[in-house]
Amino acid sequence: MSKPLRIAIAGLGTVGAGIVKMVQTHGELLARRAGRPLEIVAVSARSKGKDRGVGLSGYAWEDDPVALAKRDDVDLLVEVMGGEDGPAKACVEAALASGKHVVTANKAMLALHGQAMAEQAEAAGVALRFEAAVAGGIPIVKALTEGLAGNSISRVMGVMNGTCNYILTKMDATGESYGDVLKEAQALGYAEADPTVDVGGIDAAHKLSLLAATAFGTRVAFDKVEIEGIERITLQDIHNAADMGYKIKLLGVAQQNEDGLEQRMQPCLVPTASPLGQLEGVSNMVVVEGDFIGQTVYQGPGAGEGPTASAILGDIMDIARGLVIPAFGQPAKGLAQPNISSTGSDAAYYLRFSLTDEAGVLAKLAAILGDHSVSVNRMHQYGHDGKTAPLVIVTHQTPRASLDAALAEISALNASLAEPVALRIESL
Amino acid sequence: MSKPLRIAIAGLGTVGAGIVKMVQTHGELLARRAGRPLEIVAVSARSKGKDRGVGLSGYAWEDDPVALAKRDDVDLLVEVMGGEDGPAKACVEAALASGKHVVTANKAMLALHGQAMAEQAEAAGVALRFEAAVAGGIPIVKALTEGLAGNSISRVMGVMNGTCNYILTKMDATGESYGDVLKEAQALGYAEADPTVDVGGIDAAHKLSLLAATAFGTRVAFDKVEIEGIERITLQDIHNAADMGYKIKLLGVAQQNEDGLEQRMQPCLVPTASPLGQLEGVSNMVVVEGDFIGQTVYQGPGAGEGPTASAILGDIMDIARGLVIPAFGQPAKGLAQPNISSTGSDAAYYLRFSLTDEAGVLAKLAAILGDHSVSVNRMHQYGHDGKTAPLVIVTHQTPRASLDAALAEISALNASLAEPVALRIESL
Repeated sequence: MSKPLRIAIAGLGTVGAGIVKMVQTHGELLARRAGRPLEIVAVSARSKGKDRGVGLSGYAWEDDPVALAKRDDVDLLVEVMGGEDGPAKACVEAALASGKHVVTANKAMLALHGQAMAEQAEAAGVALRFEAAVAGGIPIVKALTEGLAGNSISRVMGVMNGTCNYILTKMDATGESYGDVLKEAQALGYAEADPTVDVGGIDAAHKLSLLAATAFGTRVAFDKVEIEGIERITLQDIHNAADMGYKIKLLGVAQQNEDGLEQRMQPCLVPTASPLGQLEGVSNMVVVEGDFIGQTVYQGPGAGEGPTASAILGDIMDIARGLVIPAFGQPAKGLAQPNISSTGSDAAYYLRFSLTDEAGVLAKLAAILGDHSVSVNRMHQYGHDGKTAPLVIVTHQTPRASLDAALAEISALNASLAEPVALRIESL
Repeated sequence: MSKPLRIAIAGLGTVGAGIVKMVQTHGELLARRAGRPLEIVAVSARSKGKDRGVGLSGYAWEDDPVALAKRDDVDLLVEVMGGEDGPAKACVEAALASGKHVVTANKAMLALHGQAMAEQAEAAGVALRFEAAVAGGIPIVKALTEGLAGNSISRVMGVMNGTCNYILTKMDATGESYGDVLKEAQALGYAEADPTVDVGGIDAAHKLSLLAATAFGTRVAFDKVEIEGIERITLQDIHNAADMGYKIKLLGVAQQNEDGLEQRMQPCLVPTASPLGQLEGVSNMVVVEGDFIGQTVYQGPGAGEGPTASAILGDIMDIARGLVIPAFGQPAKGLAQPNISSTGSDAAYYLRFSLTDEAGVLAKLAAILGDHSVSVNRMHQYGHDGKTAPLVIVTHQTPRASLDAALAEISALNASLAEPVALRIESL
């Protein structure tokens, strides 16, 4: 058996402790599979004294994660502290600079600094891996970079934020409002006290930008992801969608259009009977489409101690077995900034308007849609309360620009009481 | 860029031609991803003159696949001829003996000879890979051996024969009989003229035995898979199952029980709302459960030119990148024969009896079930025609042995007109 792979862990929160547990529980099995032992050498976290439910006495302790990353007796740094800059970034850079492999779960950091870090890793001839950063325990980065490596990928999409999917499926199941379910999710620990990063779609967009870079061989372009959160989704939207055979999901889509890359993270309607429509609770799902493979679907737990540790261990095992491939599946130096699609792709849309309940308003709205060649497939007006007339319209396939122009005009009407809600109906 | 990986392809049927297409179409992309070019050097098939829709003039031709496997200018042999013995086995063995990597889609061959071949590959220090042999294009072997390599796997199960799933979902959707749908499947090319290997569960059992070895680190034990086909499933069974919220699937399950490994390939009832229950047509799905990851689900096309070629290319790309790991995820030399669970795991069962329509029969049957502590959850008698009384019973959880003993006694009754049908209800 070859010499051990010596591991340092920066961050001993839930995930860090999970990794320690996993290595301690399965030491022999892991050694047999990897052909060499995995050995945790040193750890670092904010408070040394805290009980984390795992024995740490066998490992050296470093207060400073950068010092941890630089230790001579370490081959691989696991970064599970989080934070897009600060100590996480500093210790990853220090590890790469001193020729150590890095495994991280830090999507926010990679969404901003992934390109530079990938280049640094390549220059040093070491691996930078991030399976745990995207869709938790699902080995989706591996599927994209390795299993499907023979394909040209056309679209990758998925539900990648468990908190949002929990909220949307709970609203659907119980008839509770967005606000009430969000409070419950916070009480259960599924949502942060400040939930913006989750419900605003930012966390999921971090993940999508990493998948897009991996799928299409372009630089990570997080700043080019169109992001819309689930905050404006009402129970009525969910019920309207259900009546038409759809579920509402916070769906990330990255696809190659003729004029460039389209990256969207937004609430979409998907068919109830589709795998995405069936996805409930905090699970994640990623759909990958390639030219030879067709469509494949990957489902699993998107967060939590065990699943995240599992993804980290998968990366560690690859490195222990000697696999060193570029972080995004091809040499980072050669990755170009993506051309971003200016038109986006056509789609049918679900539209909800809040209009004053007066004569002629509907005619005006219909005329504006018609002027912009946005053609109406279904229309439903409900719940007049004497003042407002909520109106739901489902369009036929329409270019995004036409819809946006029509919505801008409709918003400007005096009769328009609130910004229209427009949800894309994603073709699966 | 490093020197090319030189490939020989034995077999130019649909899959072989698909691999050629893929390498020709994506040459530059593959080279960028692998860090070196993939170069098809030589090919072999039964008839040289046949038009396969791809240009082969750039490649050397060998009539004899063994000669192909031994060529000095080849680094890797792709075996896509099929057949568990004969030329396929001969050329794989020749390739390994001459120190060449092997990628194969041949589940039947590996189910019988996988252990010996894996040992041979390891001794030679080369890779033996078989992603395409299990669940077509789904990168499930990779997920098990690499992505989830940190876990102890507790259960792996799935729908791994597209023909059977097509037949069962078509019966369900159209109300046609098993025989009629089978004929259609044959006309569409989904089922062979002799469909036994598919509908009898043998093809799927080959795949299950490979997954089990990979998941549990034991020798392939195809001869220890309990196999039951879908030939006895009637439309009535499908409707009865649907009424209770289940679908019938040819489901392969391999799981670690306390007393050993259980491997079954048999028609089972699964909840309609589960991912397995939702799986339609020729798609495949594999569910993997591990101690840290929890449950993950993988879905995709289970056969066909593109998906199978995609899986083969995934293996080739790994080898091009320098990844050489044991075929079953840990050294083959160290793999032991699995202990086979003698009791199997408890389950609820769907039972269908054909009884003579006479007084007292039901009482006798109920008494026998009771004697063996098989407890009845639901019972439904339907369609008396004056002679036979079809009876459907759903049991509570029961040990397999108790059920078998009860069914043997019931079969022996004069009132029993046909062998009872017993379908396991798989817990998901």
